[in-house]
Amino acid sequence: MSAADDAGEDDGGLSCPLPLSEHPRILLAHGGGGRLMQQLIERLFLPAFDNPLLGARRDSAVIALDGIRVAFTTDSYVVHPLFFPGGDIGHLAVYGTVNDLAMCGARPKWLSVGFIIEEGLPMTTLERIVASMRAAARACAVELVTGDTKVVERGRGDGLYVNTAGIGIIEHGLDVGPQAVRAGDAVLLSGDLGRHGIAVMASREGLEFDTAIESDLAPLHGPVLALIDAGIDVHCLRDLTRGGLTAALHEIAATADCGIELDEAAIPVHADVAAACELLGLEPLQVANEGRFVTFVPATQAAAAQAILRAHPIAQAAIRIGQVADAPSAGVTLNTAMGVRRVLDLPSGEQLPRIC
Amino acid sequence: MSAADDAGEDDGGLSCPLPLSEHPRILLAHGGGGRLMQQLIERLFLPAFDNPLLGARRDSAVIALDGIRVAFTTDSYVVHPLFFPGGDIGHLAVYGTVNDLAMCGARPKWLSVGFIIEEGLPMTTLERIVASMRAAARACAVELVTGDTKVVERGRGDGLYVNTAGIGIIEHGLDVGPQAVRAGDAVLLSGDLGRHGIAVMASREGLEFDTAIESDLAPLHGPVLALIDAGIDVHCLRDLTRGGLTAALHEIAATADCGIELDEAAIPVHADVAAACELLGLEPLQVANEGRFVTFVPATQAAAAQAILRAHPIAQAAIRIGQVADAPSAGVTLNTAMGVRRVLDLPSGEQLPRIC
Repeated sequence: MSAADDAGEDDGGLSCPLPLSEHPRILLAHGGGGRLMQQLIERLFLPAFDNPLLGARRDSAVIALDGIRVAFTTDSYVVHPLFFPGGDIGHLAVYGTVNDLAMCGARPKWLSVGFIIEEGLPMTTLERIVASMRAAARACAVELVTGDTKVVERGRGDGLYVNTAGIGIIEHGLDVGPQAVRAGDAVLLSGDLGRHGIAVMASREGLEFDTAIESDLAPLHGPVLALIDAGIDVHCLRDLTRGGLTAALHEIAATADCGIELDEAAIPVHADVAAACELLGLEPLQVANEGRFVTFVPATQAAAAQAILRAHPIAQAAIRIGQVADAPSAGVTLNTAMGVRRVLDLPSGEQLPRIC
Repeated sequence: MSAADDAGEDDGGLSCPLPLSEHPRILLAHGGGGRLMQQLIERLFLPAFDNPLLGARRDSAVIALDGIRVAFTTDSYVVHPLFFPGGDIGHLAVYGTVNDLAMCGARPKWLSVGFIIEEGLPMTTLERIVASMRAAARACAVELVTGDTKVVERGRGDGLYVNTAGIGIIEHGLDVGPQAVRAGDAVLLSGDLGRHGIAVMASREGLEFDTAIESDLAPLHGPVLALIDAGIDVHCLRDLTRGGLTAALHEIAATADCGIELDEAAIPVHADVAAACELLGLEPLQVANEGRFVTFVPATQAAAAQAILRAHPIAQAAIRIGQVADAPSAGVTLNTAMGVRRVLDLPSGEQLPRIC
């Protein structure tokens, strides 16, 4: 049997509704969390791998298994450099996938690990990263249960890439996702924005700021499960990785067909991060975080939810930043400190390559 | 919270029983399926991620979920070139992970996909590979339910690397694995050896042989589930990927603490493959396959098992190639065509880099 022949026989379903060939080659921006990545997903991956689980476009697929709901997710990590202020690729690869599970309201349980190592990587570097993954897994009470190692020639990688996939269990009856978002829902943010992207970028470029900016990298299942355990009717959760708050809210607004109104003054950004963003020409609301999420809850439960989040060390600064508009399809808008309402645009491309 | 600090606090458990520093840097051979890869697993990964599921060292972890047994596995695919005679990285990434699930006796169900794309990859290449994955998934009745895309700069990858993780369901009561191997078990091989490795290598190096050698790439869950459905008491299954038949049997012999005796004359190798191996200085029993497996069954069921396998197109040439010795710890031995018994050594390193 020829696999190549098979492929040739069955590519009819991939005729794209819109041409992908606007860009005949892959750009860094196709991995950046912005408009080009959305196009790749919508015009190539979703039509090809068409199925309801993928189509739901959550952080994890939710699989029904004899009455048990199982969340399943994957991410590859290509962060450069491997070690950065506040973390490293090992912690990132564990927490990042734990967080994708948590964003479905699942309790993270088991992880797989795939290493793609560039020939010549110092053995001590690999040992440090493996130790880091071990510590991160323990901190989340997840087990790394299966793995794979590949080695590529010098110049065909960049030290180390790590993939993790994760399985979690959904232990409650909520159906968390954009489809559950309702007009009037309060939007809560778990903390200040932009530290992860700026920390990695500063480390990579050798930039020095007055005070060291550390990544916000953290596991998020603790505060999420606390909300659910307390009976908060959590409608939607999303961690603010590539593309930051802006990309996350755009995706939710598009999937839920709702408008989201934010209050700019309420959104916390450290002065150091704001200064670094100004220096680098970046928009803090588009910078990636690895320990921040938004949650959509009924307005009547917003204060209770905020109090629960603030009891967690990694969400001490949790705050209500806006609400879901009554009008559908209104996009994401920002009420600025100047009293002006402006549309928050989705970045088209790649602000900060390889920050996760 | 500083993730780096966390890691620093908890690396005491990684003091290796044996030094890894024999090689201070990662070599291609650390990914080759031979002795160096075993060392990396035994001295670094197993002590670090210590848990019974990983320690079982099967092709997949087997998770108990409220009475349901779930198999979970991952592999990254870095094959070069992306398209080769008989297949491509898309089919490989689906079938390879399907096969790891099948080797636990699981029915493959759901796959995740992680793409690491090098900037500049032609969009048409990505489209072809996505179409190939779609066709392969349909052929196995598995769904690609969650995914991730990263893009790295030119010169930091090699076109495309693909990771897949997979979940399967074990629908029977057998506990398939090296621990179930018994003295006297028959060892059956599903077909001829070496075609995948030689096909990829020939394609990469531009070698031409008298007849085109095509990869044996194929999904293996069909014949495996047929054995189990027919009531064969399958003790152990292993697909013959990196390191080929030799590495697979060495790992089983070591884990099961048994000896395995093979009959060289019974092991099928196509004349073209044998000739190519001689030309390239390779040992056919160490060359990687992507559509071949061994199964260990009670001797009394060997003939029935062989007949069931031969009813499947991809295992038409299935044959008994040996048995488990009465003496434990006897290693893997080969009764040669000349009537001599020789020890089949585990290759130390990397014969054929990046064939999967």
